[in-house]
This record gives sequence, structure tokens and C-alpha cells, in this order.
Amino acid sequence: MPSPTPQPAFVLVRPQMGENIGAAARAMWNFGLDRMHVVGPRDGWPNGRAVAMASGAGRLLDEAQLHADLPGALADTTFTFATTARGRGLTKPVYSPERAMQMAAEMIARGEKVAVLFGPERAGLENEDVAQANAIISVPVNPEFPSLNLAQCVLLTAYEWRRQTEQVQHETVEMGRTDWANGTEVEALARHYEDTLDQAGFFFPDSKADSMKLNLRNLWSRMRLTRADVQTLHGILRQMVRWKDRG
Amino acid sequence: MPSPTPQPAFVLVRPQMGENIGAAARAMWNFGLDRMHVVGPRDGWPNGRAVAMASGAGRLLDEAQLHADLPGALADTTFTFATTARGRGLTKPVYSPERAMQMAAEMIARGEKVAVLFGPERAGLENEDVAQANAIISVPVNPEFPSLNLAQCVLLTAYEWRRQTEQVQHETVEMGRTDWANGTEVEALARHYEDTLDQAGFFFPDSKADSMKLNLRNLWSRMRLTRADVQTLHGILRQMVRWKDRG
Repeated sequence: MPSPTPQPAFVLVRPQMGENIGAAARAMWNFGLDRMHVVGPRDGWPNGRAVAMASGAGRLLDEAQLHADLPGALADTTFTFATTARGRGLTKPVYSPERAMQMAAEMIARGEKVAVLFGPERAGLENEDVAQANAIISVPVNPEFPSLNLAQCVLLTAYEWRRQTEQVQHETVEMGRTDWANGTEVEALARHYEDTLDQAGFFFPDSKADSMKLNLRNLWSRMRLTRADVQTLHGILRQMVRWKDRG
Repeated sequence: MPSPTPQPAFVLVRPQMGENIGAAARAMWNFGLDRMHVVGPRDGWPNGRAVAMASGAGRLLDEAQLHADLPGALADTTFTFATTARGRGLTKPVYSPERAMQMAAEMIARGEKVAVLFGPERAGLENEDVAQANAIISVPVNPEFPSLNLAQCVLLTAYEWRRQTEQVQHETVEMGRTDWANGTEVEALARHYEDTLDQAGFFFPDSKADSMKLNLRNLWSRMRLTRADVQTLHGILRQMVRWKDRG
């Protein structure tokens, strides 16, 4: 069963190689999309090579809707985007994947049915296909090297869908098996280093001692130490003292 | 020669299949990046399969810097991101590709040297590699199906680099060989339809004639017609009249 999440349908128009259909299925599911339509696949349907390539996303192929032509695939669609890298001489709005997926999210939230067309590998969509779409999506590639393959184009569009619809955490911290050190622990560490290094004659000459201590304090705070880090740093110093004491 | 544009270096760490190295080169150059470093490639260097796959981006392989180990690759780097999909038990900040490439752009603008590490295909970076990085990049994939291949991870990171650093046009209109129609032209079209359809008895019953005319006017403006569209619509009506006159 397709997931219940409202989402755009991704329509592969006359795809050629099964491997690319399978890779497109994986790219969709990588970003949580699972409504694939296939129009006139060159090598028939189902396609064994597609299934082999899709491993892990094979369900999308089992559930894909097969259509003989594009109007059939778009029967219940209210807004259609066509992905294309090159100009077509057709008067039509052209959106970045980012803006297009923002629009798709808004339309889908209002109950509309949105489709995105992806053309065959060799030459992309025909002008006859593009003329059936309401708007164009164009990926902002390097103009010196614009060639994206089918699965890459699907991947970037699906990525933008997820970016526009999921709350992306832009910044987190992965914690090892430890917590952040608190002020008492950092203060104790700083004193341990200051006292021990004082005895060791590290803060030399006297005139520089204060600024050396300040820099050391600043280092401990800038690093944002964990409790485990604090224990490690205490341990280093204790071991150095032990080593010295052994002579 | 690499392009003079300041940019992050993409470091492939112990890549396995030449095809994937070639696909990574293509993905980089799709978004204008051309500084590849390769650390300990499994099948030696240069790699014929990489070259075959990279077609169009082969220059990146010719100019790639080969290193025996990761510290060698990072010798002049001041900030390193590691891409990884799974938790490592290492206390480390984790950024979205979007935020990471924003940070990279800011650091590079200040003259810093930034690198992004990509792990081997089978299992990704080792913890020993990740521990050498200052921060982690994690792509916000579907947790039920998080597997991205090497070239896809490179593609999404390179896409975000370009998105953060190039002025992306989110909305343009591709114009066919025509201009937008002006008010005089649209007004003449509206009158042509009103007058002709009046004669044809289209605005029936009388009580609805005004609202039918209003809706027709609204259609012409909502469509945002080009001069070519206006000519086509005039022509349709003229031809229908001719056909009627022929009897």
C-alpha cells in the first residue's frame, strides 16, 4: 500500500532502461515518496532489471500505475510540472526545484493533485509532453555541464520535496555516551591545569603568566567539553605527574 | 586547470569502484565543483573505469590529488566536514547539507580551506576518519530507507553548495518567439469574441449575458496571453465564421 502521506506523483515518461526505473524508485523512497506512474516503458512492464535495481524500494514498482499515454497518467491531476534542462520555445513559467516543491506542497495541502514529469534518458521530454504541463522545473546546474541522469533528477526533486515538507534539523549535536560538563567541572579542570603547570614552571616568564592562563581558560570554554573530555584531560595531567615522579 | 572559483575540496576516502569515482566527478562538475581528492583508492590510480564513467568530467580525475592517507589529504584544510548517515557515538555537531554548505561558503569567503569527506561505498567512513573531521553532514533522508550511494551523496552536497553560492532564479518565464500581448490587443480580442458570439447567439439567456461576458474577459486576463496566442484566438473565430458562411 502506498503511504497515506499526500504527495506529488512522479511520472516517468517512456523510460528506457529498467536500471534507471529502479534507481528512480530508490531515489523517490530515499525521500519518502512512493507514488510512481510509468507511461509507455520501452521494455514493457513489469521490468526485471528495474526490480533488481530497486532493492529496498521494489514496493514502488509493484504499486506503480502503468499508462499507455501521458493524458492517461494525468487524468486526475490538477497541476503538472515538467522537468527539463533545455529551452523549448514554449511560453511557460520555469521554477527552481525548491520553488516548485514549495508550490506543490501548498497546492497539495489545498487538496490538489500534483504530478511531476520526468523524460526518457536519451533526450528528455518531447515538446508535446511539455505542452501538457502547467510549468517547468529546471535544476540550477553548471551551464558548462548540465547533464543529469533520470535518477539524479528524481533524487534532487524528491530531496526538495522533503526539504519543503519535513522539519529539517539544520543543526544538532550527536552526543557520545556522555553529557556536557558543567561549570563546576570545567572550573576544577582549569584549576588543576593552572596549579600543576605552575609547579612545572610552564607559566614563564612571569610577565606572560596571566595571559597564558587566560588563553588556557578560553581554550577549555571554546572547546565545549563533555564530562568524558574533562576526565581525559585530568587523567593526562595526573599521568604526566606520575611519570615525572617515577623519575 | 581547476577553476579559479574558491570552493570546498571533496575528498573520496578509500573509494572502491571506479564507476562510482567517475559518477562522483560528474556529480561535482554538474554543480561547478572541480577539486577532487582521492585517498587510498582500492583499485589504484589512475582508474580506467572511473575515466570511462566520468565522460565530460574527466578533467576532474586528471587533476585529482591522490593521497595515501587522510591526514595527507587534509594537510592544508582548516575545517573538515564528514558525510555520514549513521550515528557514531562521537560527540560532534551534525549539520544538514544546506546549513553545512552555508557555513562552508562563509568560511571560504574568509579565506579558509574547507574539505568534505565521503566514505567508501560499502560501509561509509570509519570512526577514525570521522574523528578527524570538525563536524558531520547528514542528509535528511527517509529514516525507513536512508541508503544513498556515493555519487548521490556527492550530488546533493554539491547541489547545496551551488544553491548557497549562486544566485538561483526561482521563477522565470521561458518565452516562445513572441511577446506578451498588451492591453489594446487583449481588448480587441475580447471585443471580437463578444461581437461575434453575440451574433452567434452564444450569450443566452439574456439574463446571463453579462456574467458570461465577464467570465470570458476574466479568462483572457487570467491566461496572460502572448501576441501569438491573440492571433491564434482571432484566427479560430474567423475560421468558424468562414465555415458557417460556406454553409
